[in-house]
Amino acid sequence: MNNLKKVLIANRGEIAVRIIQACHLLKLKCVAVYSTADKEALHVQLADESVCIGGPDSNQSYLNQQNLLAAAEITNADAIHPGYGFLSENADFAHLCEQQNIKFIGPSSKVIALMGEKANARETMETAGVPIVPGSPRDFIDVDSGLAIAKKIGYPVMLKASAGGGGKGMRVIHSEMEFKQKFSIAQKEAQSAFNDTHMYEEKYLEHPRHVEVQLVADQQGHVVILGNRDCTLQQNHQKVIEEAPAVIVDKATQDEMFRVCIRAAKQIQYEGAGTIEFLYDAPGKFYFMEMNTRIQVEHPVTELTTQTDIVALQLRIARGEPLTNFKEVVSARGFALECRVTAKTAGQIKHLLLPSGHGIRTDRALYQGYKVPPNYDAMIAKIIAYGPDRQTTIRQMQIAIEQTVVEGIRTNLDFLMQLLQEPDFIKNTTDVNWIDLLTHAK
Amino acid sequence: MNNLKKVLIANRGEIAVRIIQACHLLKLKCVAVYSTADKEALHVQLADESVCIGGPDSNQSYLNQQNLLAAAEITNADAIHPGYGFLSENADFAHLCEQQNIKFIGPSSKVIALMGEKANARETMETAGVPIVPGSPRDFIDVDSGLAIAKKIGYPVMLKASAGGGGKGMRVIHSEMEFKQKFSIAQKEAQSAFNDTHMYEEKYLEHPRHVEVQLVADQQGHVVILGNRDCTLQQNHQKVIEEAPAVIVDKATQDEMFRVCIRAAKQIQYEGAGTIEFLYDAPGKFYFMEMNTRIQVEHPVTELTTQTDIVALQLRIARGEPLTNFKEVVSARGFALECRVTAKTAGQIKHLLLPSGHGIRTDRALYQGYKVPPNYDAMIAKIIAYGPDRQTTIRQMQIAIEQTVVEGIRTNLDFLMQLLQEPDFIKNTTDVNWIDLLTHAK
Repeated sequence: MNNLKKVLIANRGEIAVRIIQACHLLKLKCVAVYSTADKEALHVQLADESVCIGGPDSNQSYLNQQNLLAAAEITNADAIHPGYGFLSENADFAHLCEQQNIKFIGPSSKVIALMGEKANARETMETAGVPIVPGSPRDFIDVDSGLAIAKKIGYPVMLKASAGGGGKGMRVIHSEMEFKQKFSIAQKEAQSAFNDTHMYEEKYLEHPRHVEVQLVADQQGHVVILGNRDCTLQQNHQKVIEEAPAVIVDKATQDEMFRVCIRAAKQIQYEGAGTIEFLYDAPGKFYFMEMNTRIQVEHPVTELTTQTDIVALQLRIARGEPLTNFKEVVSARGFALECRVTAKTAGQIKHLLLPSGHGIRTDRALYQGYKVPPNYDAMIAKIIAYGPDRQTTIRQMQIAIEQTVVEGIRTNLDFLMQLLQEPDFIKNTTDVNWIDLLTHAK
Repeated sequence: MNNLKKVLIANRGEIAVRIIQACHLLKLKCVAVYSTADKEALHVQLADESVCIGGPDSNQSYLNQQNLLAAAEITNADAIHPGYGFLSENADFAHLCEQQNIKFIGPSSKVIALMGEKANARETMETAGVPIVPGSPRDFIDVDSGLAIAKKIGYPVMLKASAGGGGKGMRVIHSEMEFKQKFSIAQKEAQSAFNDTHMYEEKYLEHPRHVEVQLVADQQGHVVILGNRDCTLQQNHQKVIEEAPAVIVDKATQDEMFRVCIRAAKQIQYEGAGTIEFLYDAPGKFYFMEMNTRIQVEHPVTELTTQTDIVALQLRIARGEPLTNFKEVVSARGFALECRVTAKTAGQIKHLLLPSGHGIRTDRALYQGYKVPPNYDAMIAKIIAYGPDRQTTIRQMQIAIEQTVVEGIRTNLDFLMQLLQEPDFIKNTTDVNWIDLLTHAK
């Protein structure tokens, strides 16, 4: 077993605090790093030692690979936990750690690189038998080729400019007739925008939901599924409220998702905690989006429903422990919900009351008197509720949000409360575009 | 079903906050009451409405039955939740509520009275088949009677002055010879202290542990066991650290305890949440101490291990819901530990950091800036940890206590930390006298 003694946490905020908790659980020393903007941050106070790694801009500090490695060297840290965001999915940084014989807590740099490249990741997953969104096998320029493919994958389809982006040349098409009507207009748009007439099409999902599978894999090749999550509630592609388990997914589909995830993780020799994200369309219909090769913001909902400690598992896997005390699929019990509390302004917290009590967990790096710096991600706390079922847990969360007080800065608490009371959310009939439509409608 | 709409909470502090959470979960309005010392208290801020019921002294406010009933009448509350302490086991108050057609959340005043009287409670329990500490069937004055009884119940025995108290005339006796040596001295002591030579003896437990059983019972006669707790760690008869489940108790003994508790609760037609407390001596040997006919401070450890909401169950039972979705004995999963944080001084909280994150629950009515009044119980917060087993949970609790900051008043946090690190505690070899011996030894 790897002789891990001291972990440098290459992150800040609530996830740094969370990692400190897990390190201390396993009696590992931990080193906090901080930018000059984060001198008063909670993770600095709670760690065993701390090193300033640069200026307030992330590029000077939390993204500064050389400074991080130097801090690890100075403090004699033998591992680096990257958290999420920042360098957590940076294959170069993981590779540098490997070269310097510092354990990067996560999969190998090769696997990070593989999953970080969209096209490679899709191909790898497809090879492993993971469903991907049906689409053109290659680009095309003539309407007949397009029609043939559309017939094969079934309407509606999304027509896209191959060179594209920003919606130029993009059309949702529901029938053969509509395809014939819209193809040339879309192609012209593509040409004028990108000077390229190559088109691409794929199955259009009308009301997709975001369903993801949490897994952990050890160095010995065991893969364990810790259930799934529903992260459909997103605003501008940012998750806002997350749930576990994904109650929308029927048992047969769920079993199939878990099966392909195990196969994929084994095929790429995955190590550590990872998440495979899917678009979920309907029973039996789910499609690979991407794999996140790190701990995720929403991991607490899985910890609560599976009674596991995922961050501690990351550390235990990193030091070589095998996942022998687990079933291949850990079953979920109860229901958990997470709300991401974000700051809309920087400034000092004048009064703070976080919810607590029965079925409530908070992950945060906040305290009353703390000055939220303007430099980093807006998320300042996660409020997590856990109860016997979705309806009860939603109610618990409504109460928790209602009881939360953050004075001195503006937050999204009112917005969260609004979402929690929306009938579509309560009936669980949302999709990934739901918040954006809701907010545009108002 | 009883048409409960609004609950008056005849209490303060963390339990008032906890009851508000449960009321809101069930969409019941709740009324806080407060003394003039508690104007700024959190329970006042979180309730739907609040009524000042008198001066800072408990007798003027939280124990003032007429003021509480007037507050219920003014606010149109149809039920009163008494919490713990104060009037929660006051049969007269429960009776007054019954007379005024206000639902007292708990068992009937008759049952409260029955369990409140030590001798009656013991007799009732004995009739129901609950073991009680073996002792003299009646008082005696001659050494031969005493010797005969001692022979029957087995040494060691505790010899007591019948009229006694304060240790006068009390002797722990390990053998017949010692009995003969000490009897007359003890009796003389009894005579000079109480002018009464009647003696009493009972089995002396050398290293008893405090094990209690949590139950809930509905109005339809169902009794459900929510496992047991170990509350052996006490200082001057005050619980300090509580655990669930009581891992010291073997399966067969536990089953027997649960069996007698079900029988006893049914026999007295118990309603609501209740706890039967035992002294646990050895496998198969446990003895009734008392029954608490109310929610207990340590209920969160049971909520975590049985995934139930006991306070919400109290409310649901009070409005007539039957406990039909439960097995008769709900099995425990994982391990939970609670530390009672107490204030040693009154004063304003200048800086507050309560632990949070994975496996941590806090129940509190504290906030930074709050002035802890000198008038009430010293407990200011409960920190509860939940993990897969006792060792892991102890470690989680050590980290939680270490991370807790309460500035501005003196607390018992250092003492809690000391206890959590004591080898006897970690090895689970303590008894109810352990803390007192430990603190006297130092």
